[in-house]
Amino acid sequence: MANLSDKMSNTVGLPPGTIMHIGDKSSEKPKITVIDYDEKDYTEHSLDQIEDCRPYLYKKTVTWINIDGIHDTSLIERAGVVFGLHPLVMEDIVNTTQRPKFEDYEDFLFVVLKMLLLRPEEKKEEIWAEQVSIVITKNYVVTFQEKEGDVFNVIRERLKTAKGRIRKAGADYLAYALMDAITDHYFIILEKLGEEIEDLEDSLVKFSSNNTARQIHSLKREIIYLRKAVWPLRELISGMIRSESEIITKTTQIYLRDLYDHTVQVIDTIETERDIVSGMLDIYLTSLSNRMNEIVKVLTIISTIFIPLTFIAGVYGMNFSTGASPFNMPELNMKYGYLMCIGIMIVVALSMLLFFKRKKWI
Amino acid sequence: MANLSDKMSNTVGLPPGTIMHIGDKSSEKPKITVIDYDEKDYTEHSLDQIEDCRPYLYKKTVTWINIDGIHDTSLIERAGVVFGLHPLVMEDIVNTTQRPKFEDYEDFLFVVLKMLLLRPEEKKEEIWAEQVSIVITKNYVVTFQEKEGDVFNVIRERLKTAKGRIRKAGADYLAYALMDAITDHYFIILEKLGEEIEDLEDSLVKFSSNNTARQIHSLKREIIYLRKAVWPLRELISGMIRSESEIITKTTQIYLRDLYDHTVQVIDTIETERDIVSGMLDIYLTSLSNRMNEIVKVLTIISTIFIPLTFIAGVYGMNFSTGASPFNMPELNMKYGYLMCIGIMIVVALSMLLFFKRKKWI
Amino acid sequence: MANLSDKMSNTVGLPPGTIMHIGDKSSEKPKITVIDYDEKDYTEHSLDQIEDCRPYLYKKTVTWINIDGIHDTSLIERAGVVFGLHPLVMEDIVNTTQRPKFEDYEDFLFVVLKMLLLRPEEKKEEIWAEQVSIVITKNYVVTFQEKEGDVFNVIRERLKTAKGRIRKAGADYLAYALMDAITDHYFIILEKLGEEIEDLEDSLVKFSSNNTARQIHSLKREIIYLRKAVWPLRELISGMIRSESEIITKTTQIYLRDLYDHTVQVIDTIETERDIVSGMLDIYLTSLSNRMNEIVKVLTIISTIFIPLTFIAGVYGMNFSTGASPFNMPELNMKYGYLMCIGIMIVVALSMLLFFKRKKWI
Amino acid sequence: MANLSDKMSNTVGLPPGTIMHIGDKSSEKPKITVIDYDEKDYTEHSLDQIEDCRPYLYKKTVTWINIDGIHDTSLIERAGVVFGLHPLVMEDIVNTTQRPKFEDYEDFLFVVLKMLLLRPEEKKEEIWAEQVSIVITKNYVVTFQEKEGDVFNVIRERLKTAKGRIRKAGADYLAYALMDAITDHYFIILEKLGEEIEDLEDSLVKFSSNNTARQIHSLKREIIYLRKAVWPLRELISGMIRSESEIITKTTQIYLRDLYDHTVQVIDTIETERDIVSGMLDIYLTSLSNRMNEIVKVLTIISTIFIPLTFIAGVYGMNFSTGASPFNMPELNMKYGYLMCIGIMIVVALSMLLFFKRKKWI
Amino acid sequence: MANLSDKMSNTVGLPPGTIMHIGDKSSEKPKITVIDYDEKDYTEHSLDQIEDCRPYLYKKTVTWINIDGIHDTSLIERAGVVFGLHPLVMEDIVNTTQRPKFEDYEDFLFVVLKMLLLRPEEKKEEIWAEQVSIVITKNYVVTFQEKEGDVFNVIRERLKTAKGRIRKAGADYLAYALMDAITDHYFIILEKLGEEIEDLEDSLVKFSSNNTARQIHSLKREIIYLRKAVWPLRELISGMIRSESEIITKTTQIYLRDLYDHTVQVIDTIETERDIVSGMLDIYLTSLSNRMNEIVKVLTIISTIFIPLTFIAGVYGMNFSTGASPFNMPELNMKYGYLMCIGIMIVVALSMLLFFKRKKWI
Repeated sequence: MANLSDKMSNTVGLPPGTIMHIGDKSSEKPKITVIDYDEKDYTEHSLDQIEDCRPYLYKKTVTWINIDGIHDTSLIERAGVVFGLHPLVMEDIVNTTQRPKFEDYEDFLFVVLKMLLLRPEEKKEEIWAEQVSIVITKNYVVTFQEKEGDVFNVIRERLKTAKGRIRKAGADYLAYALMDAITDHYFIILEKLGEEIEDLEDSLVKFSSNNTARQIHSLKREIIYLRKAVWPLRELISGMIRSESEIITKTTQIYLRDLYDHTVQVIDTIETERDIVSGMLDIYLTSLSNRMNEIVKVLTIISTIFIPLTFIAGVYGMNFSTGASPFNMPELNMKYGYLMCIGIMIVVALSMLLFFKRKKWI
Repeated sequence: MANLSDKMSNTVGLPPGTIMHIGDKSSEKPKITVIDYDEKDYTEHSLDQIEDCRPYLYKKTVTWINIDGIHDTSLIERAGVVFGLHPLVMEDIVNTTQRPKFEDYEDFLFVVLKMLLLRPEEKKEEIWAEQVSIVITKNYVVTFQEKEGDVFNVIRERLKTAKGRIRKAGADYLAYALMDAITDHYFIILEKLGEEIEDLEDSLVKFSSNNTARQIHSLKREIIYLRKAVWPLRELISGMIRSESEIITKTTQIYLRDLYDHTVQVIDTIETERDIVSGMLDIYLTSLSNRMNEIVKVLTIISTIFIPLTFIAGVYGMNFSTGASPFNMPELNMKYGYLMCIGIMIVVALSMLLFFKRKKWI
Repeated sequence: MANLSDKMSNTVGLPPGTIMHIGDKSSEKPKITVIDYDEKDYTEHSLDQIEDCRPYLYKKTVTWINIDGIHDTSLIERAGVVFGLHPLVMEDIVNTTQRPKFEDYEDFLFVVLKMLLLRPEEKKEEIWAEQVSIVITKNYVVTFQEKEGDVFNVIRERLKTAKGRIRKAGADYLAYALMDAITDHYFIILEKLGEEIEDLEDSLVKFSSNNTARQIHSLKREIIYLRKAVWPLRELISGMIRSESEIITKTTQIYLRDLYDHTVQVIDTIETERDIVSGMLDIYLTSLSNRMNEIVKVLTIISTIFIPLTFIAGVYGMNFSTGASPFNMPELNMKYGYLMCIGIMIVVALSMLLFFKRKKWI
Repeated sequence: MANLSDKMSNTVGLPPGTIMHIGDKSSEKPKITVIDYDEKDYTEHSLDQIEDCRPYLYKKTVTWINIDGIHDTSLIERAGVVFGLHPLVMEDIVNTTQRPKFEDYEDFLFVVLKMLLLRPEEKKEEIWAEQVSIVITKNYVVTFQEKEGDVFNVIRERLKTAKGRIRKAGADYLAYALMDAITDHYFIILEKLGEEIEDLEDSLVKFSSNNTARQIHSLKREIIYLRKAVWPLRELISGMIRSESEIITKTTQIYLRDLYDHTVQVIDTIETERDIVSGMLDIYLTSLSNRMNEIVKVLTIISTIFIPLTFIAGVYGMNFSTGASPFNMPELNMKYGYLMCIGIMIVVALSMLLFFKRKKWI
Repeated sequence: MANLSDKMSNTVGLPPGTIMHIGDKSSEKPKITVIDYDEKDYTEHSLDQIEDCRPYLYKKTVTWINIDGIHDTSLIERAGVVFGLHPLVMEDIVNTTQRPKFEDYEDFLFVVLKMLLLRPEEKKEEIWAEQVSIVITKNYVVTFQEKEGDVFNVIRERLKTAKGRIRKAGADYLAYALMDAITDHYFIILEKLGEEIEDLEDSLVKFSSNNTARQIHSLKREIIYLRKAVWPLRELISGMIRSESEIITKTTQIYLRDLYDHTVQVIDTIETERDIVSGMLDIYLTSLSNRMNEIVKVLTIISTIFIPLTFIAGVYGMNFSTGASPFNMPELNMKYGYLMCIGIMIVVALSMLLFFKRKKWI
């Protein structure tokens, strides 16, 4: 999820409202698609010029204009003219480091969200973050993204097949459905993290991995970034519910309350996972200490048994001349000297073992 | 309590209000039971079709309809028609990952709770979580669960025997009694956790268990999940008290305030247990360090006493030819050479012991 | 303070308002004492039946009825009838796990508090918790406790001797005085804990105790339980101050504000002690590490000096036949062989010592 | 700063409003000084009896009465009569464990603060805490302290020399100036603590001190006590600003806002220092672990090199009779036996060193 | 960022409103520059005397007066007269330890901010903090700094080239632009810190640095200071937005809301970095433990293999006289004695290795 921490320093010094793209650029050509529908009809077009969508704006049908490729700032500027956006809105659209937020500009509502997807990257799936900006008016919705590929296909399908109440409802319900799709995807990410956590917990037990600490740290980082992306959502949606904008109908407000519930649930789950991951490092440290204790115990048992024995053997390996004096190691010439020596060694070893037994080390 | 973390990803992409069951499925056939009562009469039925409960809805008596088996979504959909529920309500009923919440839909109140039970599983008792949704209207209450077996038998008994004021009160009091029964059961769970904590504290002292850290971690996890289930309750019940719905009478509000007190007490106890469990790992780590110190002390004492002695023995085991020169180990041929050597060893050992005595190691 | 964590599970399933005692039972017979006073007169009686106090309730004098022995639920039920208490109030009185709280029942105010005493137990003093419930009306106060022996003797004394303004004031002031006496006793408990903390800090330095970690843990537990008993007090008293009940006069409100200040001070002190105790375990862990370092340093110094020396001695203890070849250990037959060998050993030992000196280990 | 934790238990059981001194007693005789001034005149007196200050109370000039020696409770009681103080106010004045607070008694405002000074004690400067109570009325200010010597000399100087606007302003400004002087002194304390922190950080690097952990702990304690003294200030001053008392003029309110800012800055700095000190213990623990690693590495390198060598030497020191069989240690009689043996030893030692080189231990 | 913790103790005892400079002094001569502009014209001057800017104050054009060199207190005093500033404002301007704040003095708004720059210092870039005070009126803005060199060059450029809407807007927009420039620069600092964090994480893996703990600590300190500088900003700007001052136009308020968003984002990022850095020390401690385990494992394996072997060799090195008795070490004279002995040693060594294999140590 490295792309969440994009650099914003390039814009320093530019006048506010300057439209300068910040973030990963897609190399693809910008793409504009228009979906226009009401309860009866449904049409889908691809446009070349953003100005071509003008006719849709004043129709009574609901129109969804999706723009892929926000790195094309001239396109965004022209879109700003077409949709009558404030310069600060345009600046926010192209600045992909923008914090999720909701703003009420009377003529339109402006919402910025982080869309999280799982993209297959090399072997395993990576979490991919992309910023989605949504402009909501009475009868059309404009969404701005960078790359093709998003979480909205289920909505497109529902629009085409007229499933659910989406074709009967207005632009505000469409916007809600888009935000709901994004929030729903957070659960997928959370489940992936949950699985990673369970894997890590297993490797905590089995000492199967060598860089557990490192993995815990990177998991923690991912959760921290996720938190940063999701926390503002609560405020955002409750702001939308409380806003007295005419654009949001009462029926849609009920759905927004439901979305609010989902957001709270996402945040709850993130906090829960955060708590669990926080505790894991302590567990790991304790396991390490436990393991160390075991290693040192083995060393101590072996050492303390054999070091005295080796000393005894050493004593009787001394070369004091037994001929020079009767005081010089008379044991060496005794009949049972060797057996006595071995006997003493066995006694020493056994008493050491008994000592360890008492200490419950063995 | 693994079933608290069910997967929600299956619903991703479905239109809001889609009734799709999420969570563990019971294999049993759904079961509908109706209890109908007023101060004088009491009847209890089992229904085959949910539509059969229609007559009860308009009677002046209080009716409690309990539905086991929310995995049967078609049943829930039909129930939605019978009771006039909003699609989002039906979605919440079958989604067992729903966060506890209270909602006021004017015609009815909707409450989602987590019911926690102790179920005997293999040898020991396991905490089992199940979602209970309660729909409250002026004169009937509908409860939705998955498995048969719940914490409501005491209420059924009280209804049958007309104990307490339950038969004299309305549907709102019945709903309160159900919620109270659920909350009461939390205390049982908390006591079980409390006992586990005390067991763990004992094993901290005795080093009787080898995976204390692991047990602390799993205890922590259980408390984290419990917290997630219980925290929203406070808000839920205070929401019910503050709601100006006509469904809740003033008398019941007094009881709800009492329930609120219980909830706060549950949360207090959870927090207290959390604090205690948090501290336990630190204690365990300290115990490990203490133990390590003791082990290393034994190693050090034995090693540092015998290593110098072994060295002395080693010196007099050298084979320098005493014949070649008078400088070559003349001690070996002295009369008291051996005794002196033993004497030096004793002095070294004693001074080492004295050193350890001073350091308070022995 | 184990009795703070009494079991509440026995009441599970009982209808709300059921009067069932939870907590430690005193084996003594319940005792009812009545103190009746106004500015001029003071009488003190012991009653056999709770119904006997009826005449006092309608007198213009202030009456304080104290009931010891809440385990006698039939007594409490009859008291409920005499004083006109709500069933939930009676349930709270006998449930000694009740959280401290204040409730305004219009006719009377109901307060539940935890009274903490130091009771001599075996050798040292133990903290003892008991629940006190106070019912306050216009002209009488009823207190419910379990065991004889409380913190109110100072109040009884003041009433008898007409010290201070207590005899001139009403029932609300009496209730305040009782609550004030309970709060004042918290300071004694806190000072006892403070002394224990200072003792522990001493034993941290001196390593005089072997189970410091354990003591810190149990101190932490006591503080956690104390916190649980005291935190709700702040809310409780501010609730009393804000309540618009006619029972509390304006003059008493000033005293309640003073009590509120005391409560805040108790909480402050608990938090301060909590902070200090939290830090102590870290200090202890660091001390352990320090000590370990010292032990291992001794082991390392002795080992690394003597192991090479022992090796040298071992080499010259080998039995290569000096006769078989001139290459086989010619040193053994040299004139100064032994002295050279000893010389090398001294050089090795000194250079090791120099190495340790540089590392500042010695 | 031990005197911040004085005993309050002595007052337990006394009726509220009892004037009993708690805290360190000064042995000196109480001292009453009166400073009376307006824009033109300035007089300074020392009084014997508190009743002598009566004439000043009704003059139009501003009067500052300072009383040193609050342990003389009879003096305080008489002062209470003279200035018309509520019994609870008098209780607070003599109870030096009082939490900082502000109270509006309509006729006068009452403020309790902790004054912190650096007093030279033995070799180094100690932080000294003393309670200052301030009674503010329309035209006079009374301050109560225990010991002579305070932070107000700068104010006395300013009054005498008519520097700044103090002589032109009223009693409320004088009170503000006194509180400002106390708050200003907190910065001196904070700087002293800051210097201690920097000293400790140095000794963390140099391992120059043996009881770093202990020093960190006592620093932490001081910060905890400081926090307890300063945190309530914010609330206190914002209470004064918000209070609608006529005693505080609008002009002084601006200055109080400035004082509020200072208080927030003091709190900020305390929190910052707390954060830094908290982190230091972790750093120290890490340093200890680092050091331990180094010690054990030396032990391991020396041991693992020489232990195998000593074993080889031991083998060739065995006394198997080479004459009894050709299988018994034929190496001993070989021509190059000794050289081969030394060669093997060198190879073993070098490969060990290579192993350590690879592990980056040397 | 040492200059953030300047000493404030020098001002202790001075009357409030005393203008005394606190902080690092620049040795340069104070410098006054005036930029005067409207949509059409733009002039830039350097003034000698602060009084010379009087004519600009009443012109309809927007004027920006920048004063470098706040250590010249007489200059500030004269500026106070010219611009009609309250003494407390002047005190705040010269006190560079001032907490960021916003104040509404009706005639003018007063803002204090911390400007953070990266200045090349010796080899690497250092974070440099400087206090900027901004006085905002209807038609002019005064900024006070200490050193020449700030983050405002981009604004000067925009003013000169009439880029963006700055020349068309009023003094309030200019003030916003200045604050925006300061906030923008925080992102540069945060990115520098982010890079340092990533460098540290690398050195955690590679053990390439010896004082990682120290670096983590200093990084933590920098983040703590940064936090202290930035946290008050949120309150500051929201205070400006909520203020009902006429000086701030509605259009500028929209820009201020945008600035508020940026501030929240800065704070979010600081908190995120704080979280990550906090976790790093734990990771490092775990790595140290891991490494220790590995070292001790090597020591244990080598020791426990060779110590028993050395003991066996020692036994057969004993000098018991085989001639004195058939019980004295008959093995020495056996034909296969030596081979048997070597065989036993190999068996012992192999079984040790097997033991370690099973424990997964090798």
